Amino acid sequence: MRTDRREPCLKRLKRIEGQVRGVARMIEEDRYCIDVLNQVQAVKAALKKVEDEILKDHAAHCVEHAIASGDATDQRDKFNELVDLLGRYNR
Amino acid sequence: MRTDRREPCLKRLKRIEGQVRGVARMIEEDRYCIDVLNQVQAVKAALKKVEDEILKDHAAHCVEHAIASGDATDQRDKFNELVDLLGRYNR
Amino acid sequence: MRTDRREPCLKRLKRIEGQVRGVARMIEEDRYCIDVLNQVQAVKAALKKVEDEILKDHAAHCVEHAIASGDATDQRDKFNELVDLLGRYNR
Amino acid sequence: MRTDRREPCLKRLKRIEGQVRGVARMIEEDRYCIDVLNQVQAVKAALKKVEDEILKDHAAHCVEHAIASGDATDQRDKFNELVDLLGRYNR
Repeated sequence: MRTDRREPCLKRLKRIEGQVRGVARMIEEDRYCIDVLNQVQAVKAALKKVEDEILKDHAAHCVEHAIASGDATDQRDKFNELVDLLGRYNR
Repeated sequence: MRTDRREPCLKRLKRIEGQVRGVARMIEEDRYCIDVLNQVQAVKAALKKVEDEILKDHAAHCVEHAIASGDATDQRDKFNELVDLLGRYNR
Repeated sequence: MRTDRREPCLKRLKRIEGQVRGVARMIEEDRYCIDVLNQVQAVKAALKKVEDEILKDHAAHCVEHAIASGDATDQRDKFNELVDLLGRYNR
Repeated sequence: MRTDRREPCLKRLKRIEGQVRGVARMIEEDRYCIDVLNQVQAVKAALKKVEDEILKDHAAHCVEHAIASGDATDQRDKFNELVDLLGRYNR
């Protein structure tokens, strides 16, 4: 990951770590289930944003590298990885 | 889509069309909501299988063509389309 | 389903049936995979709207009936069905 | 949440916190994007298991309480919360 993209991503993950701890605290304090579930949804939404950023960086960087290199085997690998990922995301 | 892949895909869609009609019939016959919802889930699962097949064909065919051609612009387009799709599937 | 809710739902399903046929036609006409996939996504989005309507009607009608009746067994069944559905939707 | 259900849930969250830290470490170590994305998927899958457990406990406990109490307003609230959640999960 490029350095300028890495920092915001790490910050997001730091915040997510705190959110996960927050969910644990809610359970310890015996907070209402639905509130806890809403908080878990927020964590999942934050993780999706991290995924989107990693994916964008992957496209701009690794994939671009495979294209620029003209290396057909590398390109095929990159495509297959994305198609695999699509299969898993699409559920 | 290659002809040998097209037929099973069209058959699946024919069946899905019938399933959608089946859902409508269930509503007309005033069937129990949860049963109707289960049937809608089955339609969505069947559509996902169609998506998987189209995607596999896309990888084996269109993407492979872009790689074989060595056309960097075409390759970039193909990658961006997949990354876009990933963003939409990942919700 | 209440009659006034049933009609818009049946209309939606009629349109979805047409959309599914449209996807089949796109494949027969050998249209571009990504365009076909986008169309399948549209069908899935339309199905989700149908699900939302059925669910809202279920809450307003069947669930309300179980509450008004004061029948604890019926209420328990209704809750368990929703929780089951949640487990399946949350994937 | 009942005490016997709380402990496994807190353990899971502890592990998830570690997994999130692991994702950050992977980014710092400049690990391959697709491997990072796979790890994020694992975190999301682990969160879904936490959700399922909270939901099961909610059904067995809060919802059961609303049914046993015979309080129609409380029951209506509990149902509406679940239906809301369903709408958000079903995307």
